[in-house]
Amino acid sequence: MTTPPTAWYNVLADLDFELPPDLPPPARPADARLDPQVPLSLIRQEVTRERWVPIPEEVARRYAQWRVTPLRRAREFEKALGTRARVYYKYEGGNPSGSHKLNTAIAQAHYYKAAGAKRLAVATGAGQWGTAVATACHMFGLECVVYMVRTSLENKPHRRTIMEMLGAEVIASPSEGTAAGRRFAHEQAGTLSIALAEAMEATRQPGTRFCAGSGETYSLLHNTVMGLEAIDQLTEFGERADVVVAGLGAGSNFGGLAFPFLRPGQGRVRCVSVEPAACPKLTRGRYAYDFTDSSEQNPLQKMYTLGSRFAPPRMHAGGLRYHATAKVVSALYDRGLVEATAYQQRDVFESAVLFARSEGVVPAPESAHAVHGAVVEAAKADRDGTSPVILFSLSGHGLFDMASYRSYLDGQVDEEVVVTDEDIERSLEHLPPQPQHQPAGV
Amino acid sequence: MTTPPTAWYNVLADLDFELPPDLPPPARPADARLDPQVPLSLIRQEVTRERWVPIPEEVARRYAQWRVTPLRRAREFEKALGTRARVYYKYEGGNPSGSHKLNTAIAQAHYYKAAGAKRLAVATGAGQWGTAVATACHMFGLECVVYMVRTSLENKPHRRTIMEMLGAEVIASPSEGTAAGRRFAHEQAGTLSIALAEAMEATRQPGTRFCAGSGETYSLLHNTVMGLEAIDQLTEFGERADVVVAGLGAGSNFGGLAFPFLRPGQGRVRCVSVEPAACPKLTRGRYAYDFTDSSEQNPLQKMYTLGSRFAPPRMHAGGLRYHATAKVVSALYDRGLVEATAYQQRDVFESAVLFARSEGVVPAPESAHAVHGAVVEAAKADRDGTSPVILFSLSGHGLFDMASYRSYLDGQVDEEVVVTDEDIERSLEHLPPQPQHQPAGV
Repeated sequence: MTTPPTAWYNVLADLDFELPPDLPPPARPADARLDPQVPLSLIRQEVTRERWVPIPEEVARRYAQWRVTPLRRAREFEKALGTRARVYYKYEGGNPSGSHKLNTAIAQAHYYKAAGAKRLAVATGAGQWGTAVATACHMFGLECVVYMVRTSLENKPHRRTIMEMLGAEVIASPSEGTAAGRRFAHEQAGTLSIALAEAMEATRQPGTRFCAGSGETYSLLHNTVMGLEAIDQLTEFGERADVVVAGLGAGSNFGGLAFPFLRPGQGRVRCVSVEPAACPKLTRGRYAYDFTDSSEQNPLQKMYTLGSRFAPPRMHAGGLRYHATAKVVSALYDRGLVEATAYQQRDVFESAVLFARSEGVVPAPESAHAVHGAVVEAAKADRDGTSPVILFSLSGHGLFDMASYRSYLDGQVDEEVVVTDEDIERSLEHLPPQPQHQPAGV
Repeated sequence: MTTPPTAWYNVLADLDFELPPDLPPPARPADARLDPQVPLSLIRQEVTRERWVPIPEEVARRYAQWRVTPLRRAREFEKALGTRARVYYKYEGGNPSGSHKLNTAIAQAHYYKAAGAKRLAVATGAGQWGTAVATACHMFGLECVVYMVRTSLENKPHRRTIMEMLGAEVIASPSEGTAAGRRFAHEQAGTLSIALAEAMEATRQPGTRFCAGSGETYSLLHNTVMGLEAIDQLTEFGERADVVVAGLGAGSNFGGLAFPFLRPGQGRVRCVSVEPAACPKLTRGRYAYDFTDSSEQNPLQKMYTLGSRFAPPRMHAGGLRYHATAKVVSALYDRGLVEATAYQQRDVFESAVLFARSEGVVPAPESAHAVHGAVVEAAKADRDGTSPVILFSLSGHGLFDMASYRSYLDGQVDEEVVVTDEDIERSLEHLPPQPQHQPAGV
């Protein structure tokens, strides 16, 4: 029987190259000085080359409230697809906050509390990160303020209710309450990038710390409990994964499931990320130094990016709207160690509804990308006459996304959402100046 | 490790008395002849005295998609309460339909399909039964029509979406499409009793069968997988239950969890049912022969009842609005073998929010009654200086009930909902004529 991991897995330990170091932002006006004050323990986790990072006892105790999470074979889905592939999914939607994001939210809340924080400020797209941090803050007796992308908030009023139930303050972004919000008041729909800038500005209030979302290296680290458990669970089924599929936003879902499969000794496992065609950072973005948010005040990171001012077309998977993806995922993709695909949201919904009908679990639109990715992989295998084990991440439930499914059922989701090369080029014009030579490692 | 049960437990086998037999209804107009055509296999399960009823392989295979369900100790909740009791909960909300009701929906769909049905008609209060049957129908390739109490449907539009996603047709009750609906058109809010009458009328269409909800003896039987698993899971924790608490509507949740604990050899386990003060059938109703629905066309059952015309005050736990409770539960209560309590919905919400904050699981308002029941039991134990093991049923998630929680958070749930003795007496005036002597057993 699979037992909860006692340490997180750090993929950096097994890479034979260094990640490009972060760089200072080109301009940081004195009056806008923002100091997210990341706790030292998290900074250490960001750069350590230790293979295993022990999970603190208090975090492990919280994980045990819902972990080990289920790994199930999707037999009815296989039948509905008529595939000979064996399809498994790791289900993270059953946890308190409804998605995988609680895995890192709890760890971060733990470290911030230990570092003396009284209140955490966060930005959230679809609301899953906000719900996760609200849950974690309540666990550790911290206050919580959530800046939520306005379109998401309007589409999902129940997300606000659940965060408020957990004691969080929820603010629609862009808001009037911050300079960043006022600067982008013309973009009423909001973007995660603006919400991030607002949340970081909130740290000017005493005792308040900014709690990063998905893309930090330590967020990916904390989420490796998913992949570590999955490996053991597949072994219990007498299986080994051939293909691992996960939706890709800022990276914690994909990294958390996939990285443990890249460990030496795991054999050849294809790790396939799935992004929305409307926000195709890996498949169509540029590997370059970029801003991580609209404040342009934070260290530049080398990432696959569409440019921090990229505004994706209106889409249902709010959690995948981020303009770039984690620097670790980016580096692995650059080296050909992981794969990238992008799909249209109508195709993604079609697969999600088939999955819901077969297995009875409604995927979040973000997670539905992985469902569709698995469908494509299964079809490919059937064409090739192989029968691989496909594991995908069902990273969150879609029970707060019924309005999106309603649109789909009513035929109101466009067949194709078009992002032109010109859209991307125009956005990339705003990249900061790139270093002439590969900078030295830290 | 707990394995899925291979048979359901039939409490009738261990009773030293017979249930009062059903009686023919006083009047059944020829033109209103309704024949629900319950499959013989289900009728046999209704009356058998065999202790164990084997679970058909096809049903077991479906159960295995999500069962064994989690049994968790609510440690953070215990801390928040400051109790010395050990509180466990059996969580049924993680399954495809979001509540325990899928346990019997799958079994019923299986037997109806075997009996030749093409389409199932159901009535649903809060929407959980409708979602369960829609899920089960899709699994077995049956069509599904759901009559849903209008107030519930309006409060929970997403319930409609998910049922439609699963391919069901959803109709607000009372509707214009049936004679029963037209007869009660003045009660626009609807009741489960009216919806039941509508669903039964729908069986006039060829190939359509009526699929009963919670109160049938076989529904309780199918749900005993919950209690059977819970006993094994507690044993794994090195525990035995002292008190078992479950919300009480028509009876399948309470019966399914509690009955296995009444088996010989389980020791003295108190089984406490919790009903809403707004619909107090066990605590304030009468043990009498009554109609099971507003059609007044079905066999009379001896039940604790408030009268089939009882219209409870507007309340959030739509699934607990039924005017009576299962004849088996009623008979056990009448003999003093199980206990009954009733609580105000504001107190119930208060406990539910505390639970959600502590354990991160949002209970359905129906399930929240059990949460509050556990709170009351824990407080009682602390006063008495004991530290019992309290097990309660978290029968469904509340993620489609955010509007209800919104009301509660906004202070819009009344402190007290009053049902007067006069209300109950007036409703009980419409009981059918009672037999003069205890009728002979079947």
